[in-house]
Amino acid sequence: MKNQDLTEKMAFIAEIEKLKIVYRQNGVFDKSRSENSAEHSWHVTLMAVLLLDHASLPDLDILRVIKMLLIHDIVEIDAGDTFLYDEEGKNLAAEKEKLSAVRIFGLLPKKYNEEFIGLWREFEERQSPEARYAASIDAIQPLLNHLITAEKDSNPYQMTRAKVLDKKAFIQEVSEELWELTRDLIEKSVENGLYSRD
Amino acid sequence: MKNQDLTEKMAFIAEIEKLKIVYRQNGVFDKSRSENSAEHSWHVTLMAVLLLDHASLPDLDILRVIKMLLIHDIVEIDAGDTFLYDEEGKNLAAEKEKLSAVRIFGLLPKKYNEEFIGLWREFEERQSPEARYAASIDAIQPLLNHLITAEKDSNPYQMTRAKVLDKKAFIQEVSEELWELTRDLIEKSVENGLYSRD
Repeated sequence: MKNQDLTEKMAFIAEIEKLKIVYRQNGVFDKSRSENSAEHSWHVTLMAVLLLDHASLPDLDILRVIKMLLIHDIVEIDAGDTFLYDEEGKNLAAEKEKLSAVRIFGLLPKKYNEEFIGLWREFEERQSPEARYAASIDAIQPLLNHLITAEKDSNPYQMTRAKVLDKKAFIQEVSEELWELTRDLIEKSVENGLYSRD
Repeated sequence: MKNQDLTEKMAFIAEIEKLKIVYRQNGVFDKSRSENSAEHSWHVTLMAVLLLDHASLPDLDILRVIKMLLIHDIVEIDAGDTFLYDEEGKNLAAEKEKLSAVRIFGLLPKKYNEEFIGLWREFEERQSPEARYAASIDAIQPLLNHLITAEKDSNPYQMTRAKVLDKKAFIQEVSEELWELTRDLIEKSVENGLYSRD
């Protein structure tokens, strides 16, 4: 192809094919395999579109939220997925993720490279309203997915209700309604034996 | 939860978890399994964001394109994925897909049900500029994915270059650049033995 911009974009689009084989802790509906980061990204993006009315943050730019969620896990292609509750793993992953962002977003033409690196950093820093909303959705989806796909009374990492509530507490400042939803999903998970009561 | 709107949205968001186990004809990068319609939806949505500059259609509403692509395959939860070149299967699937749209989008609050049913029909009818652009992206992604993930010289359905070009010909009217890209992907696939030369 003669179009240099399009050629660079297609190199990126081919590279991110690999996100479909980055697997997460949770499963899928028929319990046949682990969920991967590409389908998770689809699920959170559509959730963000649907739940926008329930965020208490005014004037959210939904297009920026969508872009953030579509790309937020792409760095896992080199760095792998890190379990939310693995504190040591997360520190080790942070450096790898930075290098991964430089390599993979670096495949894109300059304008898009800068935009995507910026959006990814913004998401990670969780300071802007869009990043805080996107992070809330990204924190709610695994609760729902886990509740739907996990075997009853399966709690291999001995998760407690308190530990999960603590990780998700930032959602309260994004939206009372989404926080109520979060607590509801956690209570149902406790009832199903996925987290212990304390 | 007390919020009826949010409860209905969450029923829909839980239901679409099942799109992750609707499998397509193509594979994934490590050839370990088939690609599914949820991760395909993620891939096309991000492609649509990136390739917008290359569409020849003026004033495309990218947010409508994104929503269309996020939801375009959800009807497959009841109807299954139909292979693009299976003409008989496609006629049988059409009726099932309509019923599926009514059932699944019907889980949503009225406002969203109407919006999503409308977007899904618009995508299927391929008349509006947004639908034509979205359909082009949805037609290019499988060519790239197949080229990346298929075994060399594997052509189980005896596909010919002419047959594939014919199916994708509508892209030419959406964008000369995307049509050049399409032909380029098809030629590379022919070189790899995925389609016969004539």
